[in-house]
Amino acid sequence: MDIIREDESIEDLQLGQLKIIQKKNGFRFGVDAVLLANYAKDIRSAKTLDLCTGNAIVPVLMSHKTQTPLICGIEIQKEVFSMAERTVRLNGLSKRVRLNCGDINDAEKFYKKREFDVITCNPPYIPCGTAVKNDLDTKVIARHEVLCSLEDVIRVSAKLLKQQGHLVMVHRPSRLADIIYLMRCYEIEPKRVRFVHNKIGTEPTLILIDGMYKGGKELRIAPPLYLFDENGEETEELKRIYER
Amino acid sequence: MDIIREDESIEDLQLGQLKIIQKKNGFRFGVDAVLLANYAKDIRSAKTLDLCTGNAIVPVLMSHKTQTPLICGIEIQKEVFSMAERTVRLNGLSKRVRLNCGDINDAEKFYKKREFDVITCNPPYIPCGTAVKNDLDTKVIARHEVLCSLEDVIRVSAKLLKQQGHLVMVHRPSRLADIIYLMRCYEIEPKRVRFVHNKIGTEPTLILIDGMYKGGKELRIAPPLYLFDENGEETEELKRIYER
Repeated sequence: MDIIREDESIEDLQLGQLKIIQKKNGFRFGVDAVLLANYAKDIRSAKTLDLCTGNAIVPVLMSHKTQTPLICGIEIQKEVFSMAERTVRLNGLSKRVRLNCGDINDAEKFYKKREFDVITCNPPYIPCGTAVKNDLDTKVIARHEVLCSLEDVIRVSAKLLKQQGHLVMVHRPSRLADIIYLMRCYEIEPKRVRFVHNKIGTEPTLILIDGMYKGGKELRIAPPLYLFDENGEETEELKRIYER
Repeated sequence: MDIIREDESIEDLQLGQLKIIQKKNGFRFGVDAVLLANYAKDIRSAKTLDLCTGNAIVPVLMSHKTQTPLICGIEIQKEVFSMAERTVRLNGLSKRVRLNCGDINDAEKFYKKREFDVITCNPPYIPCGTAVKNDLDTKVIARHEVLCSLEDVIRVSAKLLKQQGHLVMVHRPSRLADIIYLMRCYEIEPKRVRFVHNKIGTEPTLILIDGMYKGGKELRIAPPLYLFDENGEETEELKRIYER
């Protein structure tokens, strides 16, 4: 079997020798996934799970950024899952990265309760029903809460995380109240938040949030992360995030 | 009766002709109150209430910054309430600013349900029981949730606000999860958040938050507010906030 299909391409991640298979015209990974992997990288973990893993970009990045011996990923879309599997093979990561094709709401079929130290997720950002959806293509499913809602992600994480395990997400700032409220409802205590801004003086475009299952109450909000300087150049901090 | 007592002083607010009576050695108003009044000033209101009003600094500032015809304030500590009353008289605001001495948990003795368009609050920041309290002096009561908890503020506000009325608070960033969770529990939807940082590259020291009673879900997070520049000088934005 060829490693890629006609409508796919292989991109060099400029990180170690890592490569990623993507659709030429489908949903492609963005800075979100890179920021998420970076934000989660310093939490010690024996077993990490990436929900809604797409083409496995987050597990692949985590394999480079962490020492975690086992990184799992689950993806519902068969076509996307196939890219993820081939990406893992292409990078020689089959022993360290294990993927399942399925619905996160059936996660207990694949994983045991209290199995993970860290769960990461770059979920669909747009609440179901609030945006125009023409057809259920891979892009729409990746962006809208059609097959997986924020509450699904948080509820499932609360089942699979060890005590004091971490759920680390990247999301839109407009969903912050939803995220904090739902985390509290499922006993995942928000511990760290960081806002990501394109440049100084603008509203944030993304949030990074780290919640701890059965954690104590104390939220720390980091200094803003700016992606570009006033000349439109990548900031030193963003460059470091891409390079490590 | 003299307008001030021996242990008090009158300070010029450098805003119109406004003055404020404060304890020489008690709790004194800080930048928090000024930022709160500024953050709430653009919401149209026929009747505003300031909970935990202290020496009435927020109502006095709001009298200058807004057209609101009636601004109420409630303060539990008799000695502090007396300063607030004299501050209002000193500024000739007795018709526009009305004060009550009492517990916010008894607010329904003083106010009707659904009476207010805007409620402001600069509440005690420190959760009850988490800090050393030597004795219940005015400073301790103003800073710790001894007589009034965050949940009290939010529960009472949900009773007194009109539909689509606003609860505007200043608080510590570490309490953001508590605030958002409790607001949602009492049907006050977080609509605007702004983080206040001493300078670029530091964690925020304060948050400003605006929630709407029975409001729709959509949170906007503003660009950070920086108080000082890299030379330690007040930023232009802070100067404008003080001047208007």
